Amino acid sequence: MDRQKIILDCDPGHDDAIAIMLAAKHPAIDLLGITVVAGNQTLDKTLPNALHICQTLELDVPVYAGMPLPLVRQQVVAANIHGESGLDGPVFEPLTRCEEKIGAVQFIIDTLMASDGDITLVPVGPLTNIAVAMRAQPAIVPKIKQIVLMGGAYGLGNTTPAAEFNIYADPEAAHVVFSSGVPLVMMGLDLTNQTACTMAVIERMEAIGNRAGKLFGDIMRFTHKTQHDAYGLDGGPVHDVTCVAYLIDPTIFTVQDMYAEVDITGGPSYGRTLCDYYHVYGDKAPNCKVGITLDQERFWDLVAESVEQYS
Amino acid sequence: MDRQKIILDCDPGHDDAIAIMLAAKHPAIDLLGITVVAGNQTLDKTLPNALHICQTLELDVPVYAGMPLPLVRQQVVAANIHGESGLDGPVFEPLTRCEEKIGAVQFIIDTLMASDGDITLVPVGPLTNIAVAMRAQPAIVPKIKQIVLMGGAYGLGNTTPAAEFNIYADPEAAHVVFSSGVPLVMMGLDLTNQTACTMAVIERMEAIGNRAGKLFGDIMRFTHKTQHDAYGLDGGPVHDVTCVAYLIDPTIFTVQDMYAEVDITGGPSYGRTLCDYYHVYGDKAPNCKVGITLDQERFWDLVAESVEQYS
Amino acid sequence: MDRQKIILDCDPGHDDAIAIMLAAKHPAIDLLGITVVAGNQTLDKTLPNALHICQTLELDVPVYAGMPLPLVRQQVVAANIHGESGLDGPVFEPLTRCEEKIGAVQFIIDTLMASDGDITLVPVGPLTNIAVAMRAQPAIVPKIKQIVLMGGAYGLGNTTPAAEFNIYADPEAAHVVFSSGVPLVMMGLDLTNQTACTMAVIERMEAIGNRAGKLFGDIMRFTHKTQHDAYGLDGGPVHDVTCVAYLIDPTIFTVQDMYAEVDITGGPSYGRTLCDYYHVYGDKAPNCKVGITLDQERFWDLVAESVEQYS
Amino acid sequence: MDRQKIILDCDPGHDDAIAIMLAAKHPAIDLLGITVVAGNQTLDKTLPNALHICQTLELDVPVYAGMPLPLVRQQVVAANIHGESGLDGPVFEPLTRCEEKIGAVQFIIDTLMASDGDITLVPVGPLTNIAVAMRAQPAIVPKIKQIVLMGGAYGLGNTTPAAEFNIYADPEAAHVVFSSGVPLVMMGLDLTNQTACTMAVIERMEAIGNRAGKLFGDIMRFTHKTQHDAYGLDGGPVHDVTCVAYLIDPTIFTVQDMYAEVDITGGPSYGRTLCDYYHVYGDKAPNCKVGITLDQERFWDLVAESVEQYS
Repeated sequence: MDRQKIILDCDPGHDDAIAIMLAAKHPAIDLLGITVVAGNQTLDKTLPNALHICQTLELDVPVYAGMPLPLVRQQVVAANIHGESGLDGPVFEPLTRCEEKIGAVQFIIDTLMASDGDITLVPVGPLTNIAVAMRAQPAIVPKIKQIVLMGGAYGLGNTTPAAEFNIYADPEAAHVVFSSGVPLVMMGLDLTNQTACTMAVIERMEAIGNRAGKLFGDIMRFTHKTQHDAYGLDGGPVHDVTCVAYLIDPTIFTVQDMYAEVDITGGPSYGRTLCDYYHVYGDKAPNCKVGITLDQERFWDLVAESVEQYS
Repeated sequence: MDRQKIILDCDPGHDDAIAIMLAAKHPAIDLLGITVVAGNQTLDKTLPNALHICQTLELDVPVYAGMPLPLVRQQVVAANIHGESGLDGPVFEPLTRCEEKIGAVQFIIDTLMASDGDITLVPVGPLTNIAVAMRAQPAIVPKIKQIVLMGGAYGLGNTTPAAEFNIYADPEAAHVVFSSGVPLVMMGLDLTNQTACTMAVIERMEAIGNRAGKLFGDIMRFTHKTQHDAYGLDGGPVHDVTCVAYLIDPTIFTVQDMYAEVDITGGPSYGRTLCDYYHVYGDKAPNCKVGITLDQERFWDLVAESVEQYS
Repeated sequence: MDRQKIILDCDPGHDDAIAIMLAAKHPAIDLLGITVVAGNQTLDKTLPNALHICQTLELDVPVYAGMPLPLVRQQVVAANIHGESGLDGPVFEPLTRCEEKIGAVQFIIDTLMASDGDITLVPVGPLTNIAVAMRAQPAIVPKIKQIVLMGGAYGLGNTTPAAEFNIYADPEAAHVVFSSGVPLVMMGLDLTNQTACTMAVIERMEAIGNRAGKLFGDIMRFTHKTQHDAYGLDGGPVHDVTCVAYLIDPTIFTVQDMYAEVDITGGPSYGRTLCDYYHVYGDKAPNCKVGITLDQERFWDLVAESVEQYS
Repeated sequence: MDRQKIILDCDPGHDDAIAIMLAAKHPAIDLLGITVVAGNQTLDKTLPNALHICQTLELDVPVYAGMPLPLVRQQVVAANIHGESGLDGPVFEPLTRCEEKIGAVQFIIDTLMASDGDITLVPVGPLTNIAVAMRAQPAIVPKIKQIVLMGGAYGLGNTTPAAEFNIYADPEAAHVVFSSGVPLVMMGLDLTNQTACTMAVIERMEAIGNRAGKLFGDIMRFTHKTQHDAYGLDGGPVHDVTCVAYLIDPTIFTVQDMYAEVDITGGPSYGRTLCDYYHVYGDKAPNCKVGITLDQERFWDLVAESVEQYS
């Protein structure tokens, strides 16, 4: 199999950092660029976080600054989960890396327009960059191979009873993406909450003994604590990692074809991803593969395999 | 313990019939009256269905005709689940019973106003009758001991991805009830889908050998088939029965205190019961006990115990 | 021409009182009953206000108590316009009149069901009574000759930028009425604000020298002041009177056929009556005659003619 | 008085063309650039239309291509008013002009960031370009002197009963702009419908005898016909021209300070500009000067004065 060309669109963020770790070095993935968006924290935090991760892991991949605000709504961030820096936990060296001159939206448009339809977008934060790109240059839409995104839930939300954070942070952008006609894979909380990163996992990665294993530990020990405190979970999930893992080995996951849409009415369900799990809508064709379960053992093996790529 | 005084508000409907079976004869319950509402079918079907059940079971309880249409929305019915009659399956004798002269809303108001605050409302269909009573005579609201209702879901709906049928059939009425301040117990699909009535259960009830056991069989054999056909479930749930069972023996159930509200925006989440399972709303006090699990063995024992009360 | 049979549904209210004055004695109108609803004030104020008016004017017409709360929303009243009593201004004798035993909703249903389709409903407050009647007994809908209502605006609202008070006070009820299929005449603010009752008009009615003229003066002097203070209008409009006047002599008014619907989304336009003045909806047939202008001179002549009927 | 620096954001469009005519040559205005957006027609038509106008009038001003789609909603255009080309009527020479290399959003951001807070934005089409610029670079917001826009209505809409076309074509963008905190001047239909361009006006401009007068005639003769056919108006309004005229001479207009917001609920009022004309919201400070009336004679004099600037 050819390496999958992807653009990783993220808002680091703890689990974002691990997603970068996989995407940048796993032999199945060809990471064309990292585009950054506001989400877990404001862009003036998520952008340097992305650069710190690349510097610490000695990655060559270009990093692009994206949208600092959502499309329409007032900004919300997730400081309770990711801390004031958006990536509390690791202590980084002074930053020497810089973002690219052109912006994330322009990079996405230019790269897709020059492509042969073989690029997958992997957004693991709010969908603002992708939505603006689609609206600024509609010709990219048929060029996108697929979008594998982290966000939403067919069950319970984590930010409101209705909504998961990434979608709640920019429901209108999510609506643009979900209604675009591009083939979608949605890794929602129903699936991603099955990736609790226990102390045993953390110690396994640290034991690999390289820079990636150390960063994994520094990051996930912080997440372990905050996720436990906020939601009582036994270890913190690495939500965003599932998207990259799915592209490397989809057989680890079960997914189900569903019609999915986003509530943008502004009421109490604002930002909900409505997924037709039971096919109760007779007349709406599936537009999304929604993650249901994963094989935890094989998932963590794949993460370890990626960590081992580093020196 | 004193017998619990209840008014059962229903739209028979198959599981409604079993709920009547329990409520009318179980020694823990004092059934003051049966009020009927449109829901699973139009009122001109649910009303005779209620009368047929009372006649077949030789019950003395008065039956009252309620609201034939929802408060605001256009009517929807569930003919796919309950058949054209709303209670397809059993073959009844010609009807000799009649509903009472006064209507359901008036009965609810008069009974509550004359009470000492010891009456529980048990609505297992759309909440139209209860909402109109509350709006026509607000003085009843503090008189209601509690409302134990079947409806909604904190997970997936069965009529739209967002909404369960009883709430979807009258979201505005549900909003009136959920925002009333009356203590609520909500038995939603998350809980009630755990009551699949398998062939083994049906045969157990039939083996009791009385009129109630026979009616149970006639009814639930039909439900077994339709629920399997519509949702692929292994046996049809008896949703409505959980409310009466909870009043008889709450220890069979686990419930959780949550803030719950109803989406009446009219968008794709119209009719959703938003339940704050994870207490993500810091500032909204719980207004509802929401059913989570039940002990299936003890549940069916309680149903059998009720069926055995009949001659 | 035969006398027009009407039920006047009101929430007195200053202009309501004048509407009663016309409806009860003008030879063109046969007033079957007055039904009272919460609106300008709570029902415990609007009901005695209606009885006081009937007592003061020595009217025989039966008065029925209706809905004390709107269908779905939280109650709002217009104390800023109508004062704490809902009819500040006149000083009434102690009340000896009583409302009828049956309620307004039941009266509306019974009267319409016994009729030959020749009864016009004239609601000049929130539409709660009419909506509950339509939902409790849908068979009345084809029996209603027409509904001539005061409420709404195709231009600016007076309670929010979007909404007029009567509709804002119960948008869901208004939606039920506007979508019912009954022929509608809507006298909105665009029309009714043309009925400013100047001091000259007040003095003209007082000069008639009977009990009705005196009550007119006591009421409209108060309105004159509050409308001036709240909206800077030169004299207070007698909104509700236009509906009765239209039934007595429609040639005083210009009306235009439009499609009209009510916003019940719950956003900033909640309670707006959207009227297709320019017929921009190609596909929605008119359901409403909307008042545009009136001949002020003939209008006040008609009011004077009505006041003169009293002794 | 110094010349007012403006960026004219438009979607030509007939009245847009006249607005360009004024903005490009009137001595009171310093036109920094013309940014084009989809609106009256798709961008592949509005962009060449803008270039054709500049070429025909021999203008040096740079033209920038902007957003081809609205922020969130599906695209709507106004082909019924502006014809298939978006500027039916005039016959243009083959196009030799080109748009600039950088896009409209980038031009707006760069120009504002380099400015001293002395630039006025004049959007006379959907607000997509302005909204994307504000969300992509929030630091521009305090740099904008004011926004003088054509759009909305406090009275009736022209596209739905609620909404005017420019706002309806991108309500979410309008929401971003109206809630931005930038001082706003809104020239809505209430004002702009007072600019009906009669045959007498057309003949007056044509009689000036230059290239601008001829173009005015070619354009407005088409508008005269379509506006009459669509709305029965006696001559077609030149909506967009009011914004430029207001900047040249605000004393021609009466405006009123109001709080204004945009309905983005998605219901029947979607795209309405809710303007608090009567100050019924006690707690919402005015954010917008809304046009109420204009002096028609002085307005057309000002247009003639502008036409006369051309050779």
